[in-house]
Amino acid sequence: MVFIKTTEPNFVAENADLVDIPVPTDPSINVIRPLHPIIRYQIDDNKVPGKTCLVILNQKINLFPRVFEKLWDNTYLRVCADGGANQLLSFVRENGLDEQKYLPKYIVGDMDSLTEETKNYYLSTGKVIVKTQSSQYATDFDKAITVCFLHFNYPNFFNDFDTLNLDDNNGLTTLKNSLDTKEFTVPLDMIFLGAIGGRFDQTIHSIGELYKHASDNLLQMRFFNTEYLEIIFLVPKGTNFIVLEKQHVDDPLCYLGLLPLNNPFIMHTKGLKYDVANYASSMTGNISSSNYNVGSNGFYVQNTDHLVVNIDLNHILGEV
Amino acid sequence: MVFIKTTEPNFVAENADLVDIPVPTDPSINVIRPLHPIIRYQIDDNKVPGKTCLVILNQKINLFPRVFEKLWDNTYLRVCADGGANQLLSFVRENGLDEQKYLPKYIVGDMDSLTEETKNYYLSTGKVIVKTQSSQYATDFDKAITVCFLHFNYPNFFNDFDTLNLDDNNGLTTLKNSLDTKEFTVPLDMIFLGAIGGRFDQTIHSIGELYKHASDNLLQMRFFNTEYLEIIFLVPKGTNFIVLEKQHVDDPLCYLGLLPLNNPFIMHTKGLKYDVANYASSMTGNISSSNYNVGSNGFYVQNTDHLVVNIDLNHILGEV
Repeated sequence: MVFIKTTEPNFVAENADLVDIPVPTDPSINVIRPLHPIIRYQIDDNKVPGKTCLVILNQKINLFPRVFEKLWDNTYLRVCADGGANQLLSFVRENGLDEQKYLPKYIVGDMDSLTEETKNYYLSTGKVIVKTQSSQYATDFDKAITVCFLHFNYPNFFNDFDTLNLDDNNGLTTLKNSLDTKEFTVPLDMIFLGAIGGRFDQTIHSIGELYKHASDNLLQMRFFNTEYLEIIFLVPKGTNFIVLEKQHVDDPLCYLGLLPLNNPFIMHTKGLKYDVANYASSMTGNISSSNYNVGSNGFYVQNTDHLVVNIDLNHILGEV
Repeated sequence: MVFIKTTEPNFVAENADLVDIPVPTDPSINVIRPLHPIIRYQIDDNKVPGKTCLVILNQKINLFPRVFEKLWDNTYLRVCADGGANQLLSFVRENGLDEQKYLPKYIVGDMDSLTEETKNYYLSTGKVIVKTQSSQYATDFDKAITVCFLHFNYPNFFNDFDTLNLDDNNGLTTLKNSLDTKEFTVPLDMIFLGAIGGRFDQTIHSIGELYKHASDNLLQMRFFNTEYLEIIFLVPKGTNFIVLEKQHVDDPLCYLGLLPLNNPFIMHTKGLKYDVANYASSMTGNISSSNYNVGSNGFYVQNTDHLVVNIDLNHILGEV
């Protein structure tokens, strides 16, 4: 047991700015690497949880081009949800990037935002599938997840797309539901741009998606806030280790929060500037904010229910 | 009873874009005017819930100058929390505004962010009280609320400030706690800039403040998101009417959300594009987002627990 031994409720202890903590090898501990693929680890089963996909939602891409390029280059598949394609095209043109390089594989959604100009541009390349899915029983967010699942799990999905004759209402979901779920062998590691930092109800809707998919072993999601450079993800109930190697994140200004956005929970941590034990967290009580990592390789958190973590990236994205 | 009569769970009905709904006169209904003081109502007890204060927190003020001027002109008292004063001074100078006009009455906080230059500038005017409060048992957010309470409830607080000899740790709180709470007769209506839209843990910490103060009859708070023009506030458990007069808000693009950021709740509405009945809302279930007002004077919401509402202001701030 790595945590502080005390029965005192809401115990807080301040640590030095560097504490030696190796990445655990105990397989019962859930290891999360939130900085992948910003920092690209060796691709093996232990370190990368699945095929990393980039999904661009309909919100202005407010990133340094070099950060965007890193996200693009280090992902296997890029998908635009509806008007996200407008945002991608604007970003590429405004920053003078190579238009032939930054082509998504799919554009999917109910297409209430995609402009004719964007649509025609991407169709003219002959390399992008544009698929309307009108159903209002799923969001564009969900539709992007579905197309990523099918891309990696349905044989020759991209090449044979036209022969599948999927309907324009909810053909993608119908195809996915027709598959034996045991066939899904490729877990997805999904990075979203535009899920956080716009209108507040959309931000909270995105956070709801994290909780709804919390028990899905084949799907891990992270949100990249482009309005304030940070990464946001869910930490499941249980014992977790969040990898933040000092070689990458040696800056106390990488502030982070451990947020009780669904049920209240009790939390223990090891490796933060302000470690806690028996810490009762809820929206009407304690909310752990403005903390930071001091573990040489990251920190532990043990929590009785799912929580959401955000980590400030402003001070590291100049270096990696 | 104005709500849809049905026992069906999670019932949703689509309305026309204009439904005639007067502001209720039944005193058991809690009437909220979220657009005050952007739209300045006649100042009488029925319409303005208390003295309106503007608090500037330490986040870049990303507003059109004319919107900022409106907020400033329509509030009684302006307070900067710590580095919020740096942000105010930068904003005033960058936009060429009148430096002598935009002086806060108080700057308060632990002063870990206030620069010497800003401090000296405001002190040199002879019109601003700069008060360090080092205690880490309250946030700068709380300290700003305390100074506003004292300003309106302690006789001659501003003029006699120096004679009070308040200590630099938590003198303000000590003074407030020494008062008979029955003496507080002036309720506060507080508008915060910089509480929402920056780092996500700070946004959620601010939302927690809404819930913590939900039962405080002498304090109403609204957050003005300056990163995405919108207003965010708490709607208490019970039957509420949110005033959004069509004359001011005749735009379906004023999207809004009704958000379950603490406990799950059951909700009924009347006057929204998509009215609901027996609607179970939670972070792992339904989250009402991307809805909008169609009531001629606003909409009703009846909810079994507190919820948080955000209203997009992008499409009205050009007109008011």
